[in-house]
Amino acid sequence: MVRMSFSIHLYYRITDQPADFIFNIHAAQTPSQVVVSENLQVSPCGAPAIEADPVTESRFIRLRADEGDLFVRYEAVVDIAHHVDDASRLYEVPVARLPLPVLPYLYPSRYCQSDRLYALANDEFGHLLRGYSRVQAINDWVQERTRFTSGSSNSSTSAIDTIESRIGVCRDFAHLMIALCRASNIPARFVTGIDYGADPALGPTDFHAYVEAWLGNRWYLFDPTGAVPRAGLVRIGTGRDAADASFATIFGSVTSNAPLISIHALDDPATGHTLPQRTAEALSTHG
Amino acid sequence: MVRMSFSIHLYYRITDQPADFIFNIHAAQTPSQVVVSENLQVSPCGAPAIEADPVTESRFIRLRADEGDLFVRYEAVVDIAHHVDDASRLYEVPVARLPLPVLPYLYPSRYCQSDRLYALANDEFGHLLRGYSRVQAINDWVQERTRFTSGSSNSSTSAIDTIESRIGVCRDFAHLMIALCRASNIPARFVTGIDYGADPALGPTDFHAYVEAWLGNRWYLFDPTGAVPRAGLVRIGTGRDAADASFATIFGSVTSNAPLISIHALDDPATGHTLPQRTAEALSTHG
Amino acid sequence: MVRMSFSIHLYYRITDQPADFIFNIHAAQTPSQVVVSENLQVSPCGAPAIEADPVTESRFIRLRADEGDLFVRYEAVVDIAHHVDDASRLYEVPVARLPLPVLPYLYPSRYCQSDRLYALANDEFGHLLRGYSRVQAINDWVQERTRFTSGSSNSSTSAIDTIESRIGVCRDFAHLMIALCRASNIPARFVTGIDYGADPALGPTDFHAYVEAWLGNRWYLFDPTGAVPRAGLVRIGTGRDAADASFATIFGSVTSNAPLISIHALDDPATGHTLPQRTAEALSTHG
Amino acid sequence: MVRMSFSIHLYYRITDQPADFIFNIHAAQTPSQVVVSENLQVSPCGAPAIEADPVTESRFIRLRADEGDLFVRYEAVVDIAHHVDDASRLYEVPVARLPLPVLPYLYPSRYCQSDRLYALANDEFGHLLRGYSRVQAINDWVQERTRFTSGSSNSSTSAIDTIESRIGVCRDFAHLMIALCRASNIPARFVTGIDYGADPALGPTDFHAYVEAWLGNRWYLFDPTGAVPRAGLVRIGTGRDAADASFATIFGSVTSNAPLISIHALDDPATGHTLPQRTAEALSTHG
Repeated sequence: MVRMSFSIHLYYRITDQPADFIFNIHAAQTPSQVVVSENLQVSPCGAPAIEADPVTESRFIRLRADEGDLFVRYEAVVDIAHHVDDASRLYEVPVARLPLPVLPYLYPSRYCQSDRLYALANDEFGHLLRGYSRVQAINDWVQERTRFTSGSSNSSTSAIDTIESRIGVCRDFAHLMIALCRASNIPARFVTGIDYGADPALGPTDFHAYVEAWLGNRWYLFDPTGAVPRAGLVRIGTGRDAADASFATIFGSVTSNAPLISIHALDDPATGHTLPQRTAEALSTHG
Repeated sequence: MVRMSFSIHLYYRITDQPADFIFNIHAAQTPSQVVVSENLQVSPCGAPAIEADPVTESRFIRLRADEGDLFVRYEAVVDIAHHVDDASRLYEVPVARLPLPVLPYLYPSRYCQSDRLYALANDEFGHLLRGYSRVQAINDWVQERTRFTSGSSNSSTSAIDTIESRIGVCRDFAHLMIALCRASNIPARFVTGIDYGADPALGPTDFHAYVEAWLGNRWYLFDPTGAVPRAGLVRIGTGRDAADASFATIFGSVTSNAPLISIHALDDPATGHTLPQRTAEALSTHG
Repeated sequence: MVRMSFSIHLYYRITDQPADFIFNIHAAQTPSQVVVSENLQVSPCGAPAIEADPVTESRFIRLRADEGDLFVRYEAVVDIAHHVDDASRLYEVPVARLPLPVLPYLYPSRYCQSDRLYALANDEFGHLLRGYSRVQAINDWVQERTRFTSGSSNSSTSAIDTIESRIGVCRDFAHLMIALCRASNIPARFVTGIDYGADPALGPTDFHAYVEAWLGNRWYLFDPTGAVPRAGLVRIGTGRDAADASFATIFGSVTSNAPLISIHALDDPATGHTLPQRTAEALSTHG
Repeated sequence: MVRMSFSIHLYYRITDQPADFIFNIHAAQTPSQVVVSENLQVSPCGAPAIEADPVTESRFIRLRADEGDLFVRYEAVVDIAHHVDDASRLYEVPVARLPLPVLPYLYPSRYCQSDRLYALANDEFGHLLRGYSRVQAINDWVQERTRFTSGSSNSSTSAIDTIESRIGVCRDFAHLMIALCRASNIPARFVTGIDYGADPALGPTDFHAYVEAWLGNRWYLFDPTGAVPRAGLVRIGTGRDAADASFATIFGSVTSNAPLISIHALDDPATGHTLPQRTAEALSTHG
């Protein structure tokens, strides 16, 4: 069992007329991820209602803020009980037997244009055994061919762009891996969390984007950046790609500072909480 | 009340190994669209179970077919009771008050890259009154600037391509209108039906793609091709764009013929069924 | 007659191994633009030979610089004698009668994908009289639909991107106008100079990019940004688009500062030199 | 010495108003390729003047044709004396020592967006010895990753599209190889000829597109499709990419048939003419 405590501070300045915000910064509440405690402060508007998507279990708040400053501060402690499997026993599922809610994750989306990558996916991964190891091969292919470089992409950068440029940040790694999985008929989706355990040389603690692929009868975690131990990834947002799972979607004239984020893992043998470790086993936190 | 009866004949030849199919050809069953009768024949495999998406009410069948021929024949009679509104009373809804399940239709998707069209949408439609007439203005802008030409686009053509090329088929008109609505902060989505009432010079009866925009508290019908009376549109599939709502998604080596489709409307004063008419009123069949 | 004196200071730091540079910062020497005096200083390598393209009359220097600092300073005084015409008498030239060296400027290039804009060009400009006024209409169309915003584009931004985004800097305005001219069968090309007369609020004096279109039997000047008087534009580089006419093309690991540029016009009735004025007449400096 | 005789029959139907044509179907006349005899027939307009580009030596005819049929028939016999080199002795040339007219072939063009492929080129080819063998490695990389499939691309397909789709015809293979050469700082250009020696299963004799790369002090021939012996390639058009070197550029409303082409090689020991053979040696026909 892993216990993560984290805080997120956001600052915006609304420069003209009221602006609308959709935030997706709450830890998801799922059977595998229990929110032990949490606290939200929104200034000056006060905290709005929390809404949860019934399928992805992502939680949203929406608010309208007037011209001036907006501070959002969220803190939480979550316990994550990973479902751990022997990767060698996990197989891909034929399309005809996928659960209906999984099907949308087979289709191309804004940043993951899998429809344009069938030939490439078939050439590179078509001959491999159908299972976890094939998804891992896609993960490794993306990692080997892409350089992690802060500031190298923007909000319109897609998987196709990253194939060409071979450079990106975590969301670009995730988009490319997702597109290649879907082009290989493997459902894959985009998850946001926090980069616990990343090399400090990469910059201050930040949001992270990673990947889930459907194998057997669950979603399994992959991190094509290789930057963090998968066991330390909290689940915040889940969607087809970054279009769905942005931590903040903003409608209006707004400037912002970079998010200020901190995260810690509890290491306490007495309570059975251990530090997140790197592992080759298959990890899942969502069925 | 409108009663439509239609039939869809599909033919495929699987050329190598079994192939998987996801079909979305069943009439949706919704409070506004009642399926009076229907019949599905699949040869040689026999008809598989029907699955319905709880939110969009789209219905799917999935099947695996061996090498050889595959015939699918679907017939249905549906009654459509339109929700009719005075268009001048329908207003756009602030983001903060949209129902949660409507939010995904604000975001960019594979073929509707609204994130790249904010400036254009603001220049062209930003000064207009927020309501039905603004959505109609987007509809008309697309219609005026795009030439309907069979065979002019393919499965990778997106709204951005159509902005450049100014040519397309119904799905391209729909994608462009949806992208511009979303870039104007109006939720919009993609619906498939049949082109009842189209000019026979455009070719044989075919599937049709049209648009729904969220106004007030419902989804309202738009057809940026202008080719058919909206009142004659049955609902088959609903999604973010064509990636979600294809009538057939195929995994494997398959050749096909063009679908063979026929559709008729009942005109019987005795039962109160009238022919679908063109109208300037706002029409909705989904809440 | 206009006399412009200007200076360009460039600074680079080569961070690893020798780097190769191609500079195109010399004032072109043409029958209409006489270089009265000029001086080039390159430190530490010393000044290399100047090479001139026989068709465009662009002048280049190439050099290899070792790890460390590189300073390039160029100063020139040029006299420009504009060929001035009554715009209403200038007509487009049928393809069959264009000089052979003009033909390449009819074809699409890296940043001016005219092949994708035929329908748009025909819709917007196809009905207009064939002549200078049609090119001016294209100039105005671009100016009205594009916002000048520093830093809004990068070295991969093309005319197609600017159609979508409606935002850009001078090179983006030029690329879009050129693409639309070529899509209208009007030869058009890219010229670089300096933004004499620009509003200081737009930032310090900088390189400028503008457009030439072939009408009658000459190249005529257009500036779709509208930011400067055309009469004050010196000619430095000429090409199909920015791929050909960059002031610096660099091969190697190099960092740089923004160019430091100043430019002045002589106002001396005694010598007949007058300040560059805005005018509606057609201006040309290249046959 | 190779002697090739070939004929090209073109048919067009002008459907509305006069149309303008630029044809580039004449065999180039160069020191290495001597036109022994040729004959051009144009019906009904009569043959127009032939114009030659002084740098590429491409030859063009331009004509205006009225509504109705247009037949163009060209026949030629050419002798090609290849410059043959030991590939292992050919090295890449530093940018600073390239002849000025070669520089444009280092820059990105419409269909060869080398500016977007630097990272990929560096990853794949950056570690290789600078010389002929590196260009051959690029040739082989393209050939291995691309499937030749008639009808798989169109006139807007670029190197970036082919990277994604991994499918194309000869012009797509050429565009991708050219883009990767330029991204590796090797000048490369597009040449058109006829596919002498191609497998008849690929279809009737057709125009062919191939590549020249600058090594040492000449342009060397490469054919990334691998479909034909390089020694049998006649030179017709030369340019940055297909935008420059189309066999026909048409302005107007025109329909056409596929070109009808035949080509033969003379095998006569008495005159010293031998059949074109496949060889691993470096071949050049242009300095």
